[in-house]
Amino acid sequence: MTNFFDFIGDASGEWQVTFMQSIIGAPLEAVTHLQILPSTPVKIKGGIWLLKGFTSNVRYAQKDEIHRLRIIQADLGRPEATCAALIPIRKSAEWWSLAQDERRRIFEEQSRHTENGLRYLPAIARRLYHCRDIGEPFDFLTWFEYAPEYASAFEELVAFMRQTEEWVYVEREVDIRLEKVK
Amino acid sequence: MTNFFDFIGDASGEWQVTFMQSIIGAPLEAVTHLQILPSTPVKIKGGIWLLKGFTSNVRYAQKDEIHRLRIIQADLGRPEATCAALIPIRKSAEWWSLAQDERRRIFEEQSRHTENGLRYLPAIARRLYHCRDIGEPFDFLTWFEYAPEYASAFEELVAFMRQTEEWVYVEREVDIRLEKVK
Repeated sequence: MTNFFDFIGDASGEWQVTFMQSIIGAPLEAVTHLQILPSTPVKIKGGIWLLKGFTSNVRYAQKDEIHRLRIIQADLGRPEATCAALIPIRKSAEWWSLAQDERRRIFEEQSRHTENGLRYLPAIARRLYHCRDIGEPFDFLTWFEYAPEYASAFEELVAFMRQTEEWVYVEREVDIRLEKVK
Repeated sequence: MTNFFDFIGDASGEWQVTFMQSIIGAPLEAVTHLQILPSTPVKIKGGIWLLKGFTSNVRYAQKDEIHRLRIIQADLGRPEATCAALIPIRKSAEWWSLAQDERRRIFEEQSRHTENGLRYLPAIARRLYHCRDIGEPFDFLTWFEYAPEYASAFEELVAFMRQTEEWVYVEREVDIRLEKVK
């Protein structure tokens, strides 16, 4: 299996934490470093905390959006992308009880989630890890990588997302900013 | 966690196998019984084969469909529902590379997946277990329970599904029919 990953907050690791704050809901224990490792569905102990997530098929993107995303998307691991953000999110029970068309309407027609993300590609690479189905404390681990010159663009992206209709349904969010250890 | 379940094919269990056939793709080893147990994401060995799946949020149903489903749906475990079917399914890579709106169009507008299922409720109770994301050999375990007098209605339902546009994307399907052990 190649779609499971462990995000390990610890005293050492490939990424150094430069900032860490709870935006809403319970915080995560402060750590100085983060390590991301390929994993399996088996819950293991490791580090000060360990968050597990898996990549999956797209859940909202429509044909035209996927087409544009595939043309413009950026890979993770670019040498110049020495800044990163890990933003774990949990949405409310109300969100999850909504039908697919209701969630899509809030996600895109009202909140422009994909449309806004596209504006910052390829500068800001993004990957979504799912974890709601596997009994984790968050529903998603959102991960971003960018070069230092795009730091203010990233702030813009995050600020935009947090004022959307979609974010009304976010009941836990922790914001962790990172720099690649040289 | 309460959303993970193991479906264990073995020489004993709560359900007796009355019929078992590969519809397309590799068969499963023949077994005489099936046991379903609450589980976790950890892959364990058990029985002659073990298939793991988890329940999740709805992926295609729209507001009006969910409303109708919630009014008419039937619980699992009804005493009169002594017949069951376990139909594990895997869809093609082509299906999974489609966008959400393309999959929805095939699933409902062309194939009437939910609409057809609604016609047989509450007689035929149904539950969907997901397993693509956790490295299982199938993408879904579909489970049905019904009283013996609805056996021919169930055949109708299955025959309908297999001639839909959606089923063009099914590359592995095993059909297992069961009776509750008295």
